[in-house]
Amino acid sequence: MDKTYKGYLIDLDGTMYRGTERVEAASDFVKALREKGIPHLFVTNNSSRRPDQVADKLNTFDIPAEAEQIYTTSMATASYIRAEKPDAKVYAMGEVGLMHALENEGLTIADEDCDYVVMGMDRELSYEKFAKACLNVRAGATFLSTNGDIAIPTERGMLPGNGSITSVVTVSTGVEPTFIGKPESIIMEQAMQAINLKREETLMVGDNYHTDILAGINAGMDTLHVQTGVTTKEQLSQYDQQPTYTIQTLDEWIPHL
Amino acid sequence: MDKTYKGYLIDLDGTMYRGTERVEAASDFVKALREKGIPHLFVTNNSSRRPDQVADKLNTFDIPAEAEQIYTTSMATASYIRAEKPDAKVYAMGEVGLMHALENEGLTIADEDCDYVVMGMDRELSYEKFAKACLNVRAGATFLSTNGDIAIPTERGMLPGNGSITSVVTVSTGVEPTFIGKPESIIMEQAMQAINLKREETLMVGDNYHTDILAGINAGMDTLHVQTGVTTKEQLSQYDQQPTYTIQTLDEWIPHL
Repeated sequence: MDKTYKGYLIDLDGTMYRGTERVEAASDFVKALREKGIPHLFVTNNSSRRPDQVADKLNTFDIPAEAEQIYTTSMATASYIRAEKPDAKVYAMGEVGLMHALENEGLTIADEDCDYVVMGMDRELSYEKFAKACLNVRAGATFLSTNGDIAIPTERGMLPGNGSITSVVTVSTGVEPTFIGKPESIIMEQAMQAINLKREETLMVGDNYHTDILAGINAGMDTLHVQTGVTTKEQLSQYDQQPTYTIQTLDEWIPHL
Repeated sequence: MDKTYKGYLIDLDGTMYRGTERVEAASDFVKALREKGIPHLFVTNNSSRRPDQVADKLNTFDIPAEAEQIYTTSMATASYIRAEKPDAKVYAMGEVGLMHALENEGLTIADEDCDYVVMGMDRELSYEKFAKACLNVRAGATFLSTNGDIAIPTERGMLPGNGSITSVVTVSTGVEPTFIGKPESIIMEQAMQAINLKREETLMVGDNYHTDILAGINAGMDTLHVQTGVTTKEQLSQYDQQPTYTIQTLDEWIPHL
């Protein structure tokens, strides 16, 4: 562990907090990053919220963060589209975080004759919204989805995630989407570009092997697994591809900054 | 073609009419069945409508039919559940046709602690409805779907069918449903039971190889393919398992009644 990283991409739930519970070591870790002036982005598969809303949530857990340090999969999706086609017309199913990100990149949100269809988490979904998504995909629009998470944990239990919502369009049209969020590398690439860092100098930090760690591995980055969330040390040991490092809590990493 | 069948199961769209277009030979065929007093049921994967609504539609195409001669996949689903558990609690996503069928079988429709989850075509779907379906399936409810049709033809184009709507729950929970409608044999078995006929004396009539003809074949019945709908004679010739008969129009079959 002699390597010093110039920048960090950091997961949120399970890494910075646990549901509604504060993670003390995470707060200390982020404060140390700030004191040393080390660039870092919080990278999340949550497509629903705007960056300022996510930053506000982090602040309630005593984790200092500004809106500019939040990188959502909605932002990655919008940035991906703009790089491909700056004047794209986009049909999007999603909440304020997605619509805000698309508009921020100067993309046009429309109902028909679209170049792209984007599926994001949408708790106001409807048959008509699915119908428009299918018609646009059948007419040749490029099909994207902010993330493939099949379920999201809530106090009521596991509720449908965006991956399952996306499947309506996949199954009905026979067209597979490109997923942007973790564990895909696209969100990692977009985040490093946003923070102006190279893959060999950036460390991806997260608790979930199947999303955070694989996203880092898929993007050719070094990865730091932290045992405060979904994937335990025991589970981790069973996978073929291992993260670069695994630690119990993030304060252990402060001496390596 | 020396065999005379005691009863008929008959598909609707593509067989009795084409969208909003009358099929003359179909009308003559059904009138001949009635004159000879041959029992027949119209069997449809449409889960949305009540039998009286379906019969009314047939009447507008000059095809005589009473509500008692309509067998929808919603009715097959309700009958299937009652046979397994007469006092079942059922969580259902669907329209009036499904709710009517479940209530007709004396089943209890509920939101939680359900024995069964049934997915049917629902143009008033919502995230909350999907959430309840997933929670019930995760809690152990038996997962059924009225039919696996991935898309339905409309004047706007192909819109999402029940098979694609069902996939939200399948993908989110990892549990595969039992499909009831064509091409599954369950709807055929339930229809023959409803009309009190044996498989060897009943002929399944339809235009669509992948739903109607395969349903008959899967149920071990003889099948009559009619070339007025989806599957052409040329397409038909490419399949391994052939229907028992194929004809251009249903009036050709009247001499065999």
